[in-house]
Amino acid sequence: MDGDGRAVSNGIAPPPFQLPAPDSPDVITANMTRLTDLTVNDRQRFLFKNLVSHLHSFVRETGLTTKEWEETILFLTRTGQKCTPIRQEFILLSDVLGVSALVDAINNPPENGATESSVLGPFFTDDAPELANGESIASEGKGEYMYVEGRILSVDGTPIPNAAIETWETDANGFYDTQYEGRERADCRGRLHSDKDGYFGYRAVVPVAYPIPGDGPVGELLLRMSRHNMRPNHLHIMVEAPGFRKLVTAFYPEGDTYIESDAVFGVKKSLVVTLETVKDEAEARKRGFPKGDNFKLLRRDVILVPQS
Amino acid sequence: MDGDGRAVSNGIAPPPFQLPAPDSPDVITANMTRLTDLTVNDRQRFLFKNLVSHLHSFVRETGLTTKEWEETILFLTRTGQKCTPIRQEFILLSDVLGVSALVDAINNPPENGATESSVLGPFFTDDAPELANGESIASEGKGEYMYVEGRILSVDGTPIPNAAIETWETDANGFYDTQYEGRERADCRGRLHSDKDGYFGYRAVVPVAYPIPGDGPVGELLLRMSRHNMRPNHLHIMVEAPGFRKLVTAFYPEGDTYIESDAVFGVKKSLVVTLETVKDEAEARKRGFPKGDNFKLLRRDVILVPQS
Repeated sequence: MDGDGRAVSNGIAPPPFQLPAPDSPDVITANMTRLTDLTVNDRQRFLFKNLVSHLHSFVRETGLTTKEWEETILFLTRTGQKCTPIRQEFILLSDVLGVSALVDAINNPPENGATESSVLGPFFTDDAPELANGESIASEGKGEYMYVEGRILSVDGTPIPNAAIETWETDANGFYDTQYEGRERADCRGRLHSDKDGYFGYRAVVPVAYPIPGDGPVGELLLRMSRHNMRPNHLHIMVEAPGFRKLVTAFYPEGDTYIESDAVFGVKKSLVVTLETVKDEAEARKRGFPKGDNFKLLRRDVILVPQS
Repeated sequence: MDGDGRAVSNGIAPPPFQLPAPDSPDVITANMTRLTDLTVNDRQRFLFKNLVSHLHSFVRETGLTTKEWEETILFLTRTGQKCTPIRQEFILLSDVLGVSALVDAINNPPENGATESSVLGPFFTDDAPELANGESIASEGKGEYMYVEGRILSVDGTPIPNAAIETWETDANGFYDTQYEGRERADCRGRLHSDKDGYFGYRAVVPVAYPIPGDGPVGELLLRMSRHNMRPNHLHIMVEAPGFRKLVTAFYPEGDTYIESDAVFGVKKSLVVTLETVKDEAEARKRGFPKGDNFKLLRRDVILVPQS
């Protein structure tokens, strides 16, 4: 606002139709709905109209009190103010209300044998080191050894060479590298490419279940809902190859306490994997693990959908 | 999060019922709805269930795309981050979507002849000076003279003495005092009390139409909706008296360009007032106006509802 001049409008004229005075709940809703007709873009007009309908129905069906409205305003304000460049509390809110999973399910329906998608989550970073197949995404001492391998394939079974793979996970404490103070470089993250036969393989650690951040509005909401804030353990994987739809997904080792009640609704049946225990010292050395006589093996092909 | 220990949960156990894997939109919504059953507080459980129903219906009925979801997340984040101790962008968002007016209408239905309520708006402050009847809420030069008077009455017509009245308004530039940089004290605001006959009267200025803040996410939203951001001119008044329901309202002088399309849906028919022009130099002096031979007169009784 311009301190000394006169306050000015955004330049848009009053609507070209008459609206009755908003003297009752019905008229308020009708007027607001009518106003959405002014939106020029068809898709946006459709979204606004539907949003207004549900938002007003929520207020009316619940008889939302002034106090509850005030609390909601404050909750949303605190949620926005909790966001930083490395923390997204509104995504977390969307996650725990099942909205992120729903958007994912609607936009990425299962397709003839292709690997299903899962939520991206807030812990992806773009500074993972480039690795050759066989190398480790985790520094030594981050957890129990796990070898991850498979092939990147098209739905017709054709191997996809040189697909770009991003993968990230928690360490054995249940933390991503970004959750430690003084993080100097990426850990438990890597970027690699499938070879000429579509094969990929890398060393990692067995991820563990972890809580989503509980020190913000979303943490308070889960407490009010008597819901735990845990995600079952999982390994994130994101695959891109020219000519194929980008896949954002994760694999969930079976048997986790929280696998049936993931706080963010990420687990799909087809993404649950079995970790084999390989007890063979020679094999462990061959795979590049520096010590011990056993490791877990996660074997899973990743099937991409050709772009139409 | 505790940097070195192991990540810990909020201590709540997985739900005591089995949930199917959220492999489809239907199951995601069903699981989320089922989880709201865990909420202990009856009212909160009802609110959460209704909220989830409308939120998920919005996503499903619109087929919300991943990109639209991302834009919504960023919009809400920016809205929260635009809030300061003297600016509430989420209230503004609620205002322009008709939600504030709807909550007001539901919680304050019209009652046998009582003065109707209107939205509080974001410009109330608690530092208005205490004035005697007849004094001015505006410093000299803030706009065209206006005298406001009436009686505070109960619905049965009984005068209410010593009711506390808070009143605030824009100056002739369309700005509240808080919108000027370097505000040193309240202006165009006052606090007074009705006398033994319920009468109140004070000097003010004719308020003018003004735009709600357009430099934030809500301003962008109105542009996308092709809606102006103006409020018709109005005088805020808030009245409290022991034994009566607190009233938050405003009076809207008739004839304003924006009176039928108030950006925040605040105008009710019963709150539209006529400003009389009094052209009488002696009367202007008698009312305390230091110069000129005319002023506007806003005469309106305020009728309160006894607390039940």
